Amino acid sequence: MLLQMQNVLVIDIGGTHVKVASTEQRVPLKIPSGPTMAAHQMVQQVVLATKGWKYDRISIGYPGPVLHDRPLAEPHNLAAGWIDFDYEKVFAKPIRFINDAAMQALGGYRGGRMLFLGIGTGLGSAMVFEGVVIPLELAHLPYRKNRTYEEYLGKAGLELRGKKRWTKSVLDVIERLKAAMVCEYVLLGGGNAKLMKGLPPHVILGANSNAIDGGIRLWQSPEERKILVAPHKDLPIETTPLRKGHWQNIPSEVKPIH
Amino acid sequence: MLLQMQNVLVIDIGGTHVKVASTEQRVPLKIPSGPTMAAHQMVQQVVLATKGWKYDRISIGYPGPVLHDRPLAEPHNLAAGWIDFDYEKVFAKPIRFINDAAMQALGGYRGGRMLFLGIGTGLGSAMVFEGVVIPLELAHLPYRKNRTYEEYLGKAGLELRGKKRWTKSVLDVIERLKAAMVCEYVLLGGGNAKLMKGLPPHVILGANSNAIDGGIRLWQSPEERKILVAPHKDLPIETTPLRKGHWQNIPSEVKPIH
Repeated sequence: MLLQMQNVLVIDIGGTHVKVASTEQRVPLKIPSGPTMAAHQMVQQVVLATKGWKYDRISIGYPGPVLHDRPLAEPHNLAAGWIDFDYEKVFAKPIRFINDAAMQALGGYRGGRMLFLGIGTGLGSAMVFEGVVIPLELAHLPYRKNRTYEEYLGKAGLELRGKKRWTKSVLDVIERLKAAMVCEYVLLGGGNAKLMKGLPPHVILGANSNAIDGGIRLWQSPEERKILVAPHKDLPIETTPLRKGHWQNIPSEVKPIH
Repeated sequence: MLLQMQNVLVIDIGGTHVKVASTEQRVPLKIPSGPTMAAHQMVQQVVLATKGWKYDRISIGYPGPVLHDRPLAEPHNLAAGWIDFDYEKVFAKPIRFINDAAMQALGGYRGGRMLFLGIGTGLGSAMVFEGVVIPLELAHLPYRKNRTYEEYLGKAGLELRGKKRWTKSVLDVIERLKAAMVCEYVLLGGGNAKLMKGLPPHVILGANSNAIDGGIRLWQSPEERKILVAPHKDLPIETTPLRKGHWQNIPSEVKPIH
């Protein structure tokens, strides 16, 4: 039951690395990035690094807001010049931009209504609702004592308050935001997700492959995304159907294409 | 360019009234409800009140959480017995349930990414994202001083703090939640929306007709919903395209069907 797909090149732009992979080349190459990298350098180096790769469409995970397949603001940790760059012209392929947290969310999506929280330096967020990816910016909402969710859950909060109290806050925020977004389960990604112990059954841990998988699935329709995860789509909210590592047990005929 | 649609019967269930209308009968009839009304009484009275009406599908706006076209919890202000009732059997028509705030949101939707906030006794919330309706429960998230958004924006907050401070809070919460949900504009509905003066251009006021219109549009696909509001779909986030009363200027060929 694997769906016919075309080859996608996925470019995952980060503050220290740009990761490049494709439908056929799932293990990403890492290109160093940083505050001096502008869009034209990224494109140049990606083209060089992927010489000989076969792909007919491109997904770009972008560390900032995206609207209608274009970046909407310059990235924080890279050089400027990303908004106005003509990506389609240089690549000569159809391109879809997506916020990087939203791309990870899509890659780890297993049906129904899912909230993604990425805990690392900051706090990334996104939702996937019946196959539709929705970028969110929950990080800067107030949480407690005039501090935001990001101040509690990000790297600064972990260092300031210690792992025990940080863990408690992560669990509390997961429950609150899951209820507020009316989601069935939460995908917890980001560099610090692995520090979490004793997660409840409705929280699944993100995998390193999520970003690349999400870039590939970006070219599917919401309906196709639901078909791939059919075993879960009729489970009601209360039963919290998904467990850590659960997707490894999905029958191969409905497994996301890896 | 009006789309072909079938006749929808819309039932908007509230704590004091059940409103009934249809594609052909846009002005709703009001049936008194209240803490003694259970599902079977509602159905009986709706069938009586709509005798002779022509419709081939039904939308029910429900004051509580909904999943897969079924109510998920008993309503707060009505008698019990709403979850297990066999609505399809009695009506013998296809039925879609939707949370009442989500139904209002859909009725006032004008394209793109819209946040709905309903300020009345409590605080209702929903999002419409490119034609897809997403129920939310933002009311009980923390806002300030260990109090929730609902405690500040609901009826109790208005009475406790007075109209001037309440207005300031409504405006502040609109900005915060609009940013967090990455929406282009906000539809402000609910009984107390009319108290707001000096709303910024990216906030539009809800209309009484929103709930009924939303019930009718519930049977459209997300793509059809986008076609109806085509003039706005390419406007970027920053320009806050919509103004109060703006939809009155939409050319008639793309006007929602009234």
